[in-house]
Amino acid sequence: MTISNPKTDLNVFENYESEVRSYSRSFPTIFDKAKGYQLWDKNGNEYIDFFAGAGALNYGHNDDAMQQKLTEYIQRDGLLHSLDMATNPRAEFLQQFNEVILKPRDMDYKIMFPGPTGTNTVESALKIARKVTNREKVVTFTNAFHGMTIGALSVTGNAFKRHGAGIPLPYSMVMPFDDYMDHFDSLTYLEKMIDDDGSGVDLPAAVILETVQGEGGINAASFEWLKRVEELCRRRDILLIVDDVQAGCGRTGTFFSFEQAGISPDVICLSKSISGSGLPMAITLIKPEYDIWGPGEHNGTFRGNNLAFVTASEALNHWKTNEFSDSILNKSELFKKRLNQFVEEYPELQGKVQGRGLMLGISSEKEGLSGQLAQAAFERGLIIETSGPDDEVLKILPPLIIDEEGIEKGLDIIEESIKAVLGKEEAKV
Amino acid sequence: MTISNPKTDLNVFENYESEVRSYSRSFPTIFDKAKGYQLWDKNGNEYIDFFAGAGALNYGHNDDAMQQKLTEYIQRDGLLHSLDMATNPRAEFLQQFNEVILKPRDMDYKIMFPGPTGTNTVESALKIARKVTNREKVVTFTNAFHGMTIGALSVTGNAFKRHGAGIPLPYSMVMPFDDYMDHFDSLTYLEKMIDDDGSGVDLPAAVILETVQGEGGINAASFEWLKRVEELCRRRDILLIVDDVQAGCGRTGTFFSFEQAGISPDVICLSKSISGSGLPMAITLIKPEYDIWGPGEHNGTFRGNNLAFVTASEALNHWKTNEFSDSILNKSELFKKRLNQFVEEYPELQGKVQGRGLMLGISSEKEGLSGQLAQAAFERGLIIETSGPDDEVLKILPPLIIDEEGIEKGLDIIEESIKAVLGKEEAKV
Amino acid sequence: MTISNPKTDLNVFENYESEVRSYSRSFPTIFDKAKGYQLWDKNGNEYIDFFAGAGALNYGHNDDAMQQKLTEYIQRDGLLHSLDMATNPRAEFLQQFNEVILKPRDMDYKIMFPGPTGTNTVESALKIARKVTNREKVVTFTNAFHGMTIGALSVTGNAFKRHGAGIPLPYSMVMPFDDYMDHFDSLTYLEKMIDDDGSGVDLPAAVILETVQGEGGINAASFEWLKRVEELCRRRDILLIVDDVQAGCGRTGTFFSFEQAGISPDVICLSKSISGSGLPMAITLIKPEYDIWGPGEHNGTFRGNNLAFVTASEALNHWKTNEFSDSILNKSELFKKRLNQFVEEYPELQGKVQGRGLMLGISSEKEGLSGQLAQAAFERGLIIETSGPDDEVLKILPPLIIDEEGIEKGLDIIEESIKAVLGKEEAKV
Amino acid sequence: MTISNPKTDLNVFENYESEVRSYSRSFPTIFDKAKGYQLWDKNGNEYIDFFAGAGALNYGHNDDAMQQKLTEYIQRDGLLHSLDMATNPRAEFLQQFNEVILKPRDMDYKIMFPGPTGTNTVESALKIARKVTNREKVVTFTNAFHGMTIGALSVTGNAFKRHGAGIPLPYSMVMPFDDYMDHFDSLTYLEKMIDDDGSGVDLPAAVILETVQGEGGINAASFEWLKRVEELCRRRDILLIVDDVQAGCGRTGTFFSFEQAGISPDVICLSKSISGSGLPMAITLIKPEYDIWGPGEHNGTFRGNNLAFVTASEALNHWKTNEFSDSILNKSELFKKRLNQFVEEYPELQGKVQGRGLMLGISSEKEGLSGQLAQAAFERGLIIETSGPDDEVLKILPPLIIDEEGIEKGLDIIEESIKAVLGKEEAKV
Repeated sequence: MTISNPKTDLNVFENYESEVRSYSRSFPTIFDKAKGYQLWDKNGNEYIDFFAGAGALNYGHNDDAMQQKLTEYIQRDGLLHSLDMATNPRAEFLQQFNEVILKPRDMDYKIMFPGPTGTNTVESALKIARKVTNREKVVTFTNAFHGMTIGALSVTGNAFKRHGAGIPLPYSMVMPFDDYMDHFDSLTYLEKMIDDDGSGVDLPAAVILETVQGEGGINAASFEWLKRVEELCRRRDILLIVDDVQAGCGRTGTFFSFEQAGISPDVICLSKSISGSGLPMAITLIKPEYDIWGPGEHNGTFRGNNLAFVTASEALNHWKTNEFSDSILNKSELFKKRLNQFVEEYPELQGKVQGRGLMLGISSEKEGLSGQLAQAAFERGLIIETSGPDDEVLKILPPLIIDEEGIEKGLDIIEESIKAVLGKEEAKV
Repeated sequence: MTISNPKTDLNVFENYESEVRSYSRSFPTIFDKAKGYQLWDKNGNEYIDFFAGAGALNYGHNDDAMQQKLTEYIQRDGLLHSLDMATNPRAEFLQQFNEVILKPRDMDYKIMFPGPTGTNTVESALKIARKVTNREKVVTFTNAFHGMTIGALSVTGNAFKRHGAGIPLPYSMVMPFDDYMDHFDSLTYLEKMIDDDGSGVDLPAAVILETVQGEGGINAASFEWLKRVEELCRRRDILLIVDDVQAGCGRTGTFFSFEQAGISPDVICLSKSISGSGLPMAITLIKPEYDIWGPGEHNGTFRGNNLAFVTASEALNHWKTNEFSDSILNKSELFKKRLNQFVEEYPELQGKVQGRGLMLGISSEKEGLSGQLAQAAFERGLIIETSGPDDEVLKILPPLIIDEEGIEKGLDIIEESIKAVLGKEEAKV
Repeated sequence: MTISNPKTDLNVFENYESEVRSYSRSFPTIFDKAKGYQLWDKNGNEYIDFFAGAGALNYGHNDDAMQQKLTEYIQRDGLLHSLDMATNPRAEFLQQFNEVILKPRDMDYKIMFPGPTGTNTVESALKIARKVTNREKVVTFTNAFHGMTIGALSVTGNAFKRHGAGIPLPYSMVMPFDDYMDHFDSLTYLEKMIDDDGSGVDLPAAVILETVQGEGGINAASFEWLKRVEELCRRRDILLIVDDVQAGCGRTGTFFSFEQAGISPDVICLSKSISGSGLPMAITLIKPEYDIWGPGEHNGTFRGNNLAFVTASEALNHWKTNEFSDSILNKSELFKKRLNQFVEEYPELQGKVQGRGLMLGISSEKEGLSGQLAQAAFERGLIIETSGPDDEVLKILPPLIIDEEGIEKGLDIIEESIKAVLGKEEAKV
Repeated sequence: MTISNPKTDLNVFENYESEVRSYSRSFPTIFDKAKGYQLWDKNGNEYIDFFAGAGALNYGHNDDAMQQKLTEYIQRDGLLHSLDMATNPRAEFLQQFNEVILKPRDMDYKIMFPGPTGTNTVESALKIARKVTNREKVVTFTNAFHGMTIGALSVTGNAFKRHGAGIPLPYSMVMPFDDYMDHFDSLTYLEKMIDDDGSGVDLPAAVILETVQGEGGINAASFEWLKRVEELCRRRDILLIVDDVQAGCGRTGTFFSFEQAGISPDVICLSKSISGSGLPMAITLIKPEYDIWGPGEHNGTFRGNNLAFVTASEALNHWKTNEFSDSILNKSELFKKRLNQFVEEYPELQGKVQGRGLMLGISSEKEGLSGQLAQAAFERGLIIETSGPDDEVLKILPPLIIDEEGIEKGLDIIEESIKAVLGKEEAKV
């Protein structure tokens, strides 16, 4: 299959929308409908989704049950906007999240609604860590991505995004992520820098990390590294913040991405798929002893996106048994097997398979190759993006509800794209 | 009428939600339904809304046409989440906003979707101003409120919120707002501070202001002051940012709050009521010559809240003629007349009526009085909040679509509340 | 008299010294000898000194007694350098300063040697204020000058010097100095900004001020303003730092410049003339309850400039009676009388006499005029500089030991220069 | 020999001087006279100097020729203080420095007088690097020491000193010094962090380093590491600043500490021994193409310490031949031989000899031992201090002019002290 006429009618975006727009450039078509793991554009072209709203659509597009709850809620004049006033959907979400997620995992956290975006939960996490410890600096890691507002951007690694701040970004200290450099024990380095009174590294308020770096190139930290970071934090009274915005909500196979590592973060950031439906929502989980906010000390107009709460409660039903979790891990194996085949069969890719669960990628040492693959795949009906500082990773992030047929179809397109791109490369030579 | 049993079932919020929650404390009941300018709680109590989601519900709750469009869009499997990919609702909004709002006003701006919250549009505005000018500092004004993320918080006045940052907030310089001090020409002072090479005030990238300060106490800048600020900005190549998040979208009678002042800001921030329905959405308007973003230089997961776009386009239909605008100004007169009566009839209020359009307030010099009034009003079925650094202003922010009956009912409750609170005060003595 | 050949041999400076050099440009000759209030260059030209090392030579050049003590100390192998180890001259200075200066004024302060420059004492003052209060921001005033290192530069007003930092200068908040603007009660403004929880002005660690701004244009604060600043500091637990580097050591007639105002600063910065001889030295006076430094928490290689201690103790002998103080005030009257005559007789100057004690100036509204006067005066044998943000003030800062003959001679040169410059101006027309 | 009564008369320091005083605590006696490598206290006790004013007395105390020049200059009424006006000693120094130091080494630099302290030259170096590159961040290294004013402190490692700032210290990024961690290629790490666009390390204005870290624990960088740092700087247009305040002026055997490494820094900071006599002085050397200061953009009252210039020119005579340099290297061998013997003979020291030239140290892994040795040595007539983040290094920094007798005497005292301290330790057990 080849996609027909995708570029129709994009001039309204070119004329009226800011130069900052990005995905309407990579996927130059107007999308019309979506269901499950599929999208259709205005020209009737069908696409498989290996992108999932950058992790915001773990449960796929337009889940039937969610659609029904949304229309019911709208039709019965439920409040759409309510700041942080008490509403039924808010109450229901609080209860459901406690019963389905926290209690079974023996986790005790207060739930904060910091505003409905990932950067908002990160900003609130940094604030509370600074308030609790009365310190300013925060340790972040190479290739971290935490958001675009100044607080979150300060702990983000990407030079292009950082430069966009227009101001020096202070109060963060960047350390090497788990396997940042070969033959280098990054954790011992971190410990030495924190413990050494002459290092120039001030005792931080917090360490913030993603267990699997999404935007930074699908880098999965080892469980041992995560445990040692936690130990360091405990030993020096540093708060451990896990930004589970992209890796959480089941993306790695368990609800939280750190469950298998056996760590207990002090603050957890969730957004993207927390609403289940792709509607804007974020929460910050804070250990009760650190929930020392004054009322309204951090606020925002859209802390009460009730439509998001409605679908969020529905989405959590997936987690009442282990079935969903098991299915993710099974699908992960399917993916990894095939991706490893690609790497072996096409050595010209200079590729390496990375990641955990359904947060996977093929990293290629060939400059520009991953971008060409993503474009070739789009032309063949697959939505897929790249990540990493040099866009060197083809990032595979399908909806978790994808079925085997979808998986195989998508992977077939990837393989076709590999052939096409490598063929073109050869042809050049 | 007196509200019955409002406090039922709030323990789920107390048990599970963070201490940061605020409005569920001021309005301690669970809200169930809302339509137009009215809300009902779970116990069947009816409330009139003089709060309007802090300005996010200018078109009232659950407008019929919007409800219908929402359910249609959901039922036809329209994309709910799409990052910043091209979708029909996004295209429609871009066109509608240009045709209904920008063109008729001879305004030429590129539209940016910076993430769906007010603080996000402010962060993007500050970034672009710094990028354009290659300067860091931004002039802000006393009692300004621009948001809770570190960039926006840096230009926010409130000490309690600022303190929540946990870090010193740099790169802003605070100047006195229009009539901050009696007998003081604040603009001449600002000019002198900017122009004087010995003042210690660095040449700023931008001046950011609200034409009517909402959270800061319903302080309306004079048109002359706004003109002079614009002139100063032009003279020194400083960008003028108007944060119209609360005062825009018709709140003061015109779509933008600055139309009557005749100024032409370089960057305009809109959020709150831009979606029409209270769903999270924000846009940043940037003069084309300053739209020098790189693709994706500022991004975010929820730049494409399509449900919000659907209702946003519908809402803009209000602005195709002058009727809506005229009605707001008429209602404003009704309010002001009655509020002024209150101030005259109840001198114990030590009150002063402030504001423009339907962004009004009674400022009271009596410590704590406005808060008591708001509470008394809630007990009588009116949702109303206070603002100002000492919560000294009873803030009147009804949906713009409110009718005369609603206005009178709400004002009657305010008058009853005044009597009750002053009576209690007297009784104390 | 006209100066002959002043520009000889300056090429060594042009060839080898950095472009940053300044006074060797304004006074382009090589100085050979100096005594009292006079200097001689290599060509034998004689100059009267109305500059006094920018306030570092209050006791004139090469005081006989100081010269003798210096040579004795050197010849007996006294330690020249001793870090902050105990030496005789250090002990003697500590005792002498306590007995001659502090005790008679009922002042109780610990003496810190922060490094031998003005900027060093300011940096130490800011540090201790932040340590004591656990706050970061410091209030400074328009046209303040406190030094060139980043901490001191942050509280300095001059745009050119600030720009030299190459980084945004944070943690300071600039407020209008006493009579910064006509018809404007700057102190009420300051109080309101500090007291108002919505102003955006964070509660500061300290207020730092010069009672007479030297570099900023010879602006003398009124005693009432100083008293009110002190009251504000007391009320809000803000430390009051007086930077008496230029205005102290007798420059305004009393040893400290604030004695007549009757205030009691928490921290006092002294440098420039504290050594008596122009040798590098600085001290920071700290109220004992705030002297909470850890040993070595602020240090520096040249905290023990023993030659400076030797002359400093000698210089303090001037303060054992009131005679010296009285003589300064008498000379001040002589100066002011004549300067006021100039302003009256030459209205083309558009001049105003400013300052206190022997820290005086004629401020001229005519752009560039003061600089022309200083140059004309130099050509006639008078060393004099300008100050103020636009170099609009002819700054009169003679050694305090100058006699009547010197005063009249210097003032005659100024009058000649006025005539010459105004004549040239006329001739142009 | 044992020192008698050293603690006499120290109460004047305890009563009047700030708690910040430090060396008068470690060496609790009042010093009276000094010559060459010896000092005498008021009680007639004699001390050998292995401290040399922390590197400010490389030419020893009270060199005869310098003393004579000083007294002559004073007696002929030479200017003591002259801001940065042209004087004979300033001209002479400029010429002498060019002819004796720069030209023979084929070095082309402009000479800046930034104020007479080490921290001042560092502040000026950071400023000019930021001005040249228009960037803010500066890379500094673990255990670096560059000074106590905010700019210099920002690039200093010591936690205690940093904490004294009372504000977060921004705009610096700390990287591991040469052999900071075993089995870790710190330079490859630095390169990767700088080159990687995702690292979060912003492209810096400059790298600042000491070739031998003095306060940080006598850590000598390898010449290869220095070369590679220089290459990295060249490749990315980063300025290389060598802070040669402590390691320069012959301390490591050559005039500049980096000569043997064959690198060519863009900016060089000199102070401490640059005056030769211990009088306050500092210079900043800037490659002509980077000398883009505006006149007076960085200034200071004591840029013209003429007495320091007088002795500085005299001191440079040492460098007219290679004799002085050779003698330093010979003495270094004497020291190293004997120090290595100590380490071998007294394994309880758990010691390691570190450093280059006459900047040496014994690092001991035994907590507190080096401090005990320094104290024991003082009691036996040797002035010696410790350095390193945990004061774990006994720092040997004799005047470069010390003779063999002095060396042996001093080393004998160290050996006695080792025996005494280890004996006491044993006795404890």
